[in-house]
Amino acid sequence: MSFNTFGRMFRYTSWGESHGPALGAVVDGCPPGIALSEADIQPWLDKRRPGTSRFTTQRREPDIVRILSGVFEGRTTGTPISLMIENVDQRSKDYANVAVAYRPGHADYAYDAKYGFRDPRGGGRSSARETAARVAAAAVARGVIPEVRIRAYLTEIGGDVIDRAAHDDAEIDRNPFFCPDPAAAARWEGLVDAARKAGSSLGAVVECVAEGVPAGWGAPLYAKLDGDLAGAMMSINAVKGVEIGDGFAAARLAGEGNADAMRPGPDGRPLFLANHAGGIAGGIATGQPVIVRVALKPTSSILTPVETIDRTGAAAEIATKGRHDPCVGIRAAPVVEAMMALVLADHKLLHRGQIG
Amino acid sequence: MSFNTFGRMFRYTSWGESHGPALGAVVDGCPPGIALSEADIQPWLDKRRPGTSRFTTQRREPDIVRILSGVFEGRTTGTPISLMIENVDQRSKDYANVAVAYRPGHADYAYDAKYGFRDPRGGGRSSARETAARVAAAAVARGVIPEVRIRAYLTEIGGDVIDRAAHDDAEIDRNPFFCPDPAAAARWEGLVDAARKAGSSLGAVVECVAEGVPAGWGAPLYAKLDGDLAGAMMSINAVKGVEIGDGFAAARLAGEGNADAMRPGPDGRPLFLANHAGGIAGGIATGQPVIVRVALKPTSSILTPVETIDRTGAAAEIATKGRHDPCVGIRAAPVVEAMMALVLADHKLLHRGQIG
Amino acid sequence: MSFNTFGRMFRYTSWGESHGPALGAVVDGCPPGIALSEADIQPWLDKRRPGTSRFTTQRREPDIVRILSGVFEGRTTGTPISLMIENVDQRSKDYANVAVAYRPGHADYAYDAKYGFRDPRGGGRSSARETAARVAAAAVARGVIPEVRIRAYLTEIGGDVIDRAAHDDAEIDRNPFFCPDPAAAARWEGLVDAARKAGSSLGAVVECVAEGVPAGWGAPLYAKLDGDLAGAMMSINAVKGVEIGDGFAAARLAGEGNADAMRPGPDGRPLFLANHAGGIAGGIATGQPVIVRVALKPTSSILTPVETIDRTGAAAEIATKGRHDPCVGIRAAPVVEAMMALVLADHKLLHRGQIG
Amino acid sequence: MSFNTFGRMFRYTSWGESHGPALGAVVDGCPPGIALSEADIQPWLDKRRPGTSRFTTQRREPDIVRILSGVFEGRTTGTPISLMIENVDQRSKDYANVAVAYRPGHADYAYDAKYGFRDPRGGGRSSARETAARVAAAAVARGVIPEVRIRAYLTEIGGDVIDRAAHDDAEIDRNPFFCPDPAAAARWEGLVDAARKAGSSLGAVVECVAEGVPAGWGAPLYAKLDGDLAGAMMSINAVKGVEIGDGFAAARLAGEGNADAMRPGPDGRPLFLANHAGGIAGGIATGQPVIVRVALKPTSSILTPVETIDRTGAAAEIATKGRHDPCVGIRAAPVVEAMMALVLADHKLLHRGQIG
Repeated sequence: MSFNTFGRMFRYTSWGESHGPALGAVVDGCPPGIALSEADIQPWLDKRRPGTSRFTTQRREPDIVRILSGVFEGRTTGTPISLMIENVDQRSKDYANVAVAYRPGHADYAYDAKYGFRDPRGGGRSSARETAARVAAAAVARGVIPEVRIRAYLTEIGGDVIDRAAHDDAEIDRNPFFCPDPAAAARWEGLVDAARKAGSSLGAVVECVAEGVPAGWGAPLYAKLDGDLAGAMMSINAVKGVEIGDGFAAARLAGEGNADAMRPGPDGRPLFLANHAGGIAGGIATGQPVIVRVALKPTSSILTPVETIDRTGAAAEIATKGRHDPCVGIRAAPVVEAMMALVLADHKLLHRGQIG
Repeated sequence: MSFNTFGRMFRYTSWGESHGPALGAVVDGCPPGIALSEADIQPWLDKRRPGTSRFTTQRREPDIVRILSGVFEGRTTGTPISLMIENVDQRSKDYANVAVAYRPGHADYAYDAKYGFRDPRGGGRSSARETAARVAAAAVARGVIPEVRIRAYLTEIGGDVIDRAAHDDAEIDRNPFFCPDPAAAARWEGLVDAARKAGSSLGAVVECVAEGVPAGWGAPLYAKLDGDLAGAMMSINAVKGVEIGDGFAAARLAGEGNADAMRPGPDGRPLFLANHAGGIAGGIATGQPVIVRVALKPTSSILTPVETIDRTGAAAEIATKGRHDPCVGIRAAPVVEAMMALVLADHKLLHRGQIG
Repeated sequence: MSFNTFGRMFRYTSWGESHGPALGAVVDGCPPGIALSEADIQPWLDKRRPGTSRFTTQRREPDIVRILSGVFEGRTTGTPISLMIENVDQRSKDYANVAVAYRPGHADYAYDAKYGFRDPRGGGRSSARETAARVAAAAVARGVIPEVRIRAYLTEIGGDVIDRAAHDDAEIDRNPFFCPDPAAAARWEGLVDAARKAGSSLGAVVECVAEGVPAGWGAPLYAKLDGDLAGAMMSINAVKGVEIGDGFAAARLAGEGNADAMRPGPDGRPLFLANHAGGIAGGIATGQPVIVRVALKPTSSILTPVETIDRTGAAAEIATKGRHDPCVGIRAAPVVEAMMALVLADHKLLHRGQIG
Repeated sequence: MSFNTFGRMFRYTSWGESHGPALGAVVDGCPPGIALSEADIQPWLDKRRPGTSRFTTQRREPDIVRILSGVFEGRTTGTPISLMIENVDQRSKDYANVAVAYRPGHADYAYDAKYGFRDPRGGGRSSARETAARVAAAAVARGVIPEVRIRAYLTEIGGDVIDRAAHDDAEIDRNPFFCPDPAAAARWEGLVDAARKAGSSLGAVVECVAEGVPAGWGAPLYAKLDGDLAGAMMSINAVKGVEIGDGFAAARLAGEGNADAMRPGPDGRPLFLANHAGGIAGGIATGQPVIVRVALKPTSSILTPVETIDRTGAAAEIATKGRHDPCVGIRAAPVVEAMMALVLADHKLLHRGQIG
């Protein structure tokens, strides 16, 4: 798991900049014989695609994926699967000021500090556009774990939280916010519109549940399932916090309140009476739903001017024009799902390798 | 970063069970020429050692470390450094019931589901006793990053939060809770005593700050400094949540409220007006203090009986006798520091390798 | 170094099949600020390109490389460099018989045994066409090690050995065999012509010398410079043997005959009186030229019919039509150079990371 | 596979110096439930142990192994297995001259060039004593691959080659040379005695055959079974060449002469009519015996004085007293077997992980 490669056994290497000719991923270690075509990948990219509602960036990218290797007669061959997505709607002139001054909260300054210079067009490599490569790779991963059902949804935008009692999975795809609570979705329209019009931006919380993960996946101590999920989620642009199960709320429970009591289940497997642990104990899946929650900060690229410095170190002020998501958390939901799928596919193969 | 090895360039491999003859770590990739003796490691182990107050487990382990390789005439040679700590106070008979029934919230069931059987004595490999190996390895890592100052402290036990205004670093080592607020420390005595007497346990929140991390350490995209920290922290026993900088609170800020505005600094480097980001942007250090916060659940091993099943799948009830920390979060503070040091040492070497 | 990724710090991931739409490599970990354009890569691909003489396969591939990421304004940015080469001269119908019967000596049967099926067109992933990706990646690696000069040449075809006394580096590029001895090159024309006309093929030995490698690169014990070179060279198609320095001949020397005696050198560095060791001791470069020699078997795809079985297990006979190199060893020379450059670039960064 | 860790899925990390208190290995990734005790490891260490005949070093090391973790009630638990061997017969005063002057052919100078200084006692980390850790780890690996039978033997000492027609596996353990030809073994007694008395040393060639390796183990392109074997063998002290199957001799064969023709076998699997390939094609096992051959140079530490320089760069002469093997190739046979077992165990788990 180093630099631009993710995973141990089911691995992908991502490449590409926001305004380069293309971006992509090379998936390596995928088992052979899995049915795969562009049609299996495209729907997931479409979910993440920008410009589908007024609540996301207006950049128009069709995000058409091409499979360049690793598939023969409709099935994976076990060799590397190269996926490529061409960029078609670059508008680099918007970034003239970004090239000289640093957007606070963005990676601009850090990249310059590390590399000495950077590709400023659209944020270059630090752009969330890279997440398209993840979503494409994850579509392949999904074929490796047909026993698992994954869904991610927003529980909060700008501090406005859904009503858990109103949660309805069927609602998630019926609004532009991946929101399971229709009343919250309605409120969020106003919230996001207001932020956008004010030249501001909003943060969000995304929750992701994976059902069907067999007890046993995961591995102590430095390939813990929750450790890998935390690392994976924190690698997503704008994520600042990760919780497994009850997360920070668990720190406020007493031992007996946090215990996921067990009773004999119908099929020899335990029947858990609660899931505070989020489906993972000791880094290993317990067979309960795996639950992850991530916090995303508000978009750093905003129209409201902010104090900053330029590349020479002089005082400056920056207002980011370009085209940006007023709430990056919205389009993060498919990416969170993708990372969940990628981690689980990797752990399925790792488990099978060690345990047989 | 796989299984029982952590790190890419500065790596350690940990081994050992709670009630085995010994535990240890092999540190690999350490630069040569660094002064190192057991005396450099022992104080850090002493901070983590059990039995130092009535608020931790009463197991009496001296935790004496031996260096078995990799050091010649008081300096590291660049070859692997083998560190060993003997276990002396095993009392395995306490675990007879744990061998047959599963402690809810603990790794017992998950290990059996994965491996088919397990070493139940003291939790075997899943015991927090393994963290002694991390602390020893981290003492070596500290020698690699003399420019960095790390401190971890508790901000919360059982939901009782410190007063940030009363924070005094000097207080951290003056109470048995690594608490920077003396008033909170006084309250926590009562809280933890009460939990212990009630056969219950408490959760906690640990915060860790690293000052002196140069801008530039870290790497996009799957070796992000925050991604690695998240994975590292989540690998610690009982951790259920990780935040960088403002963490989940950032999700409730507007873009301009979350921006860490920059002004020209005295030495050509930026002067940041805030640190919502926790010192990391785009996965790369900005030169500000790196701030991480982790949530620890209450100890799963409690005296209060809990419903469970046994290895045959039959209904059972379990009350864990043994010797346990009433609040694992307390002794986690030195471990959180250790993981911070280990991640930073690794990234210093990675940065130097790629950038020169 | 796993599956389709090579290297630890300077890494590349290769992808693509012989008759797919394209092949390529993603180079990761390259330092920033190195001048790089397609013009820096193309000449190396041209050296390896098929169809340049009657002694190589007649497949006509222009092997034009495109840089899709990781370069901005003519310099590497430190982010992944995606390189793509389109296949244009596929003639897959030639492989109808290969799809059903196994070519002895080729990977056909082994791939089927592993994956259950395979892409038979042109050998799919097992084709030496993949080495174009290595050569492209190595062109990037060369920019990382400007202090090193690498040259590979053939010392032997079909058992006909060059005259070491006649070795002239200037001759290497003057004949189609990368042969430093013009008299041997003249003889080889007849040899290879005869083999081609007979529907047979020939093996070869390639030697590679890297000058300018500083003492200290390399690392005990499982990242030894010679260990990495051996693994790298053996990963090239048709390679069956690797020697460092005197190689197998060293096994016939006495201790004092094998010793590379040292005298004080002009600049404080040792002056070696011999180089039996091939520039590596204990896995670490000594500052002498690094010398590697590899043996390549004769091309397995030959016109002469050979006994085999088909996919059903029935007896068959196979004569491979297609277009093949009568001596794969010839075009291997640029690939051996490439692997040398890739290993050395990786070790330069590893050394810099650990030692500073 | 980095630095002091070997393997991807079945991994071990080795540590220890020649004259330190102990050396050892941590085996990670071993499947659970495999019977293992010290008694399963000790016989393999005894085969490699020094001082068992007058043809090896007279250092007396009992090489008693202790298992410190990872085994419970006689079976592996799936967690790391820590193996430790104490050094008892260090005699460091023999190395006073080695500390100041460099032995030509040895790692002394290279280590100083890399690390700035080194532990000179007995060669420190560069001593072949480290191979005890490999042999111990390999004893664990053997339990993972019960289907495979491995034997290594010498085919050549000091240029004196065995008679292949006289090869008898039963002879291998009946002489101190692991020699399958009793006549050659008798000759080698005189050869090695003479070299020892002359203060010289001899090289050797070791061949290793693994039977029972199923078709399919291995993986293109950078985890090829032969690539991994080559890297593994070259990591053994004093190895300068590696061949798979016919090796360099294959370079002198014509295509049809090198083809391993196939006929229908009794059980649906192919019956191969030859094994020039050494059981590997395209990096993947074919089901035939896997054959590797390695060349070992003569021991670099010899009594005969050799010209060298000292640490200050001044001219010197060195004659190594200490206790050394007159032919390191002899005791390398168990180490070559060990690396074969370690590579195969790793590939079994990798194959199972990807293919299921």
